[in-house]
Amino acid sequence: MSVIHQSLSTSISSSTSAFLGHRYLKSIKSSDVSIPGRINGVVKCVATPSTEKTVYKTTVSRNENMGKLQAGYLFPEIARRRAAHMLKYPDAQRSYALSTVEGYTGYGAEQGEKQLRASIAKTYYENLGIEEDDIFVSDGAKSDISRLQVLFGSKVTMAVQDPSYPAYVDSSVILGQTGQFQKDVEKYGNIEYMKCTPENGFFPDLSAVRRTDIIFFCSPNNPTGYAASREQLTRLVEFAKENGSIIVYDSAYAMYVSDDNPRSIFEIPGAKEVSMEVSSFSKYAGFTGVRLGWTAIPKELLYSDGFPVAKDFNRIVCTCFNGASNIAQAGGLACVSPEGIKAMHEVVGFYKENTDIIVETFNSLGFKVYGGKNAPYVWIHFPGQSSWEVFSEILEKTHVVTTPGSGFGPGGEGFIRVSAFGHRENVLEACRRFKQLYK
Amino acid sequence: MSVIHQSLSTSISSSTSAFLGHRYLKSIKSSDVSIPGRINGVVKCVATPSTEKTVYKTTVSRNENMGKLQAGYLFPEIARRRAAHMLKYPDAQRSYALSTVEGYTGYGAEQGEKQLRASIAKTYYENLGIEEDDIFVSDGAKSDISRLQVLFGSKVTMAVQDPSYPAYVDSSVILGQTGQFQKDVEKYGNIEYMKCTPENGFFPDLSAVRRTDIIFFCSPNNPTGYAASREQLTRLVEFAKENGSIIVYDSAYAMYVSDDNPRSIFEIPGAKEVSMEVSSFSKYAGFTGVRLGWTAIPKELLYSDGFPVAKDFNRIVCTCFNGASNIAQAGGLACVSPEGIKAMHEVVGFYKENTDIIVETFNSLGFKVYGGKNAPYVWIHFPGQSSWEVFSEILEKTHVVTTPGSGFGPGGEGFIRVSAFGHRENVLEACRRFKQLYK
Repeated sequence: MSVIHQSLSTSISSSTSAFLGHRYLKSIKSSDVSIPGRINGVVKCVATPSTEKTVYKTTVSRNENMGKLQAGYLFPEIARRRAAHMLKYPDAQRSYALSTVEGYTGYGAEQGEKQLRASIAKTYYENLGIEEDDIFVSDGAKSDISRLQVLFGSKVTMAVQDPSYPAYVDSSVILGQTGQFQKDVEKYGNIEYMKCTPENGFFPDLSAVRRTDIIFFCSPNNPTGYAASREQLTRLVEFAKENGSIIVYDSAYAMYVSDDNPRSIFEIPGAKEVSMEVSSFSKYAGFTGVRLGWTAIPKELLYSDGFPVAKDFNRIVCTCFNGASNIAQAGGLACVSPEGIKAMHEVVGFYKENTDIIVETFNSLGFKVYGGKNAPYVWIHFPGQSSWEVFSEILEKTHVVTTPGSGFGPGGEGFIRVSAFGHRENVLEACRRFKQLYK
Repeated sequence: MSVIHQSLSTSISSSTSAFLGHRYLKSIKSSDVSIPGRINGVVKCVATPSTEKTVYKTTVSRNENMGKLQAGYLFPEIARRRAAHMLKYPDAQRSYALSTVEGYTGYGAEQGEKQLRASIAKTYYENLGIEEDDIFVSDGAKSDISRLQVLFGSKVTMAVQDPSYPAYVDSSVILGQTGQFQKDVEKYGNIEYMKCTPENGFFPDLSAVRRTDIIFFCSPNNPTGYAASREQLTRLVEFAKENGSIIVYDSAYAMYVSDDNPRSIFEIPGAKEVSMEVSSFSKYAGFTGVRLGWTAIPKELLYSDGFPVAKDFNRIVCTCFNGASNIAQAGGLACVSPEGIKAMHEVVGFYKENTDIIVETFNSLGFKVYGGKNAPYVWIHFPGQSSWEVFSEILEKTHVVTTPGSGFGPGGEGFIRVSAFGHRENVLEACRRFKQLYK
């Protein structure tokens, strides 16, 4: 099989020759999803997102290095010429087509398989104006966050929630967007830390936030477990619009929202002009090690010069990535089937029950407990104490590993994050030990 | 199962709490490879490659942004503290351990599963001094090339073979290492193009090559199909040493070498002090769409300040990547089993037969034909003609897609690359059409 795989897999790759024939042409004309690799490979790497209806431009400058690149990446250009040739010869003589053996395709579209992109758009963004070709399938949100940093380059300024998932800040440092680490305040220079604490209901006081090019915003939030309300996200979008900023919205926990708070930033009117969204199957379907996520970039999102952000990201994906594993993508397609969606909701429901057990435990012990309602994380306050000291005491006395809040930024100091991801009996055992320790 | 997967998958991830108990301790003490995620996740992200025996330093400056990063990425640090705790309490009270359910692990080690790393080291680098922890498993060479560019940063200088696989140059441009594209010479400013033509036997005249920090070198080469000799690679390593440069050696086609030319740069004495090697399962096992490769970085490879390159790359992998899909890694482990190695050699042998057919065809037509012997690519000269024009004529008249040599750099102008990756009947049909066209 490897031979067949190999031959197919390289039909528009960096390593092949290919035949064209009417069987292939048929598949081109059809929406046959068994050959997404070629179809998307042809179309997307050279696609220019339409900007006809767009008026708003962010004030974020396009990464000048992206402007240096000549045309598209080589192989998508060859695929484009092949597609044009096939349109020119709809009745090309009969010939074998490497491309039409059923089933397996090798090098797929860097942006993801057509049917999966379409299914993600329909499942998570129906009626929100996000289309199949706005979806870039990834090997997980963590990888895409760094690809986005490569996209933005070293000259942009960055804001993050404080506390927040550390990959935002660390990747910003690696790309050279920051100054040195300032030990006195536990912050990197040139990053705007938007403090999210009980005092402000875990939503930043935007009147005190400096304008930055990029705003990373995760809701429901890791680690605080807080999901921003529609009104708060409307203010965030307005804030981005006033400043010409781009919001990178991390919705990896959106399926944990159980009230009517938004699951996507695109539920907010006007958000498509200032936002992109990063998400993942990891926390919905146990796909952590399988590696599958996506980033949605609307055609309306433009740099200050009017250039579509999605077009440059497409070039990044074509040059620096080669698509998520086709096996993982097949699994993702199952996740967004009716049965898969039902199964994901069952998984989410189970962890939400775990969350309730953890919340009740710490409430009963008299702690100030936050999060949990719309997220699998419980954020527990230990006023005046060091997060690492609390982490160590819990580890020492209960043999339970938690996560020290200060690891997510200086705003997390004095907090501990407890995760609901675990077997029920283990969560119950942990809670018994917490009650022994803090009774 | 998702629940179990989920709970396991996050046992040292960004999203969990975990229990410690004797079952987990047992697995820690054992070399049970069914839980590589935790073992490697704990060990590798905080590992400091030993530099005791090292004297040679390159003159390449460490990316200053990497130096700004504080400690390791958060979750590996927590895993390290958990491991220390377990060593401290070998007889910790019995408790359930999230970490010890058989089989599946979720978030694996970012560097790859322990057994796969060990098997790659043994299969491809036995007796070459490359060890398990020098191997970083990736989702393919293309992705790792860009991660390496992020590692090096924007201030390094770059040399590439001309012609060469376009991902080297394009990723260099994206990272800001180059000047603008110079249309007159078809080159980007500040990149050293090492011309590889029939005149110099497809090996650059190093006496005419400007010193750069990084030298990308692919052998057997894509697109020319030429495999450098031991003597030539010895000169390349000496050249790198004289200049304090780092060679990024792309060995993605090494299994296609059928004579005694080196399969790895590490076969050259002293290469470990100036080289790393990027490779892939794509061209050996039809893994193109599965996405699996690796990068080997010796502990001996140091920046000018003596800092190990591997340690910074480890931080990149931990921060910007989350490991190759565990499913793909399981497949990779099968590839490097005795049966898998035999199967890969059969795949390679099949394509080498295709290559012979293509070589004989163009020889019979009187073309100057290069490559093919140690690679699945045939490099055909059309003196005085434009590669894209030849590409178009072949496409127009035979409906066969080739690859224009100029797409690989100005040194490829006037050449066409024909790939042997295809079904036998299609290769034979293509050759029949070539004979009609050029008879």
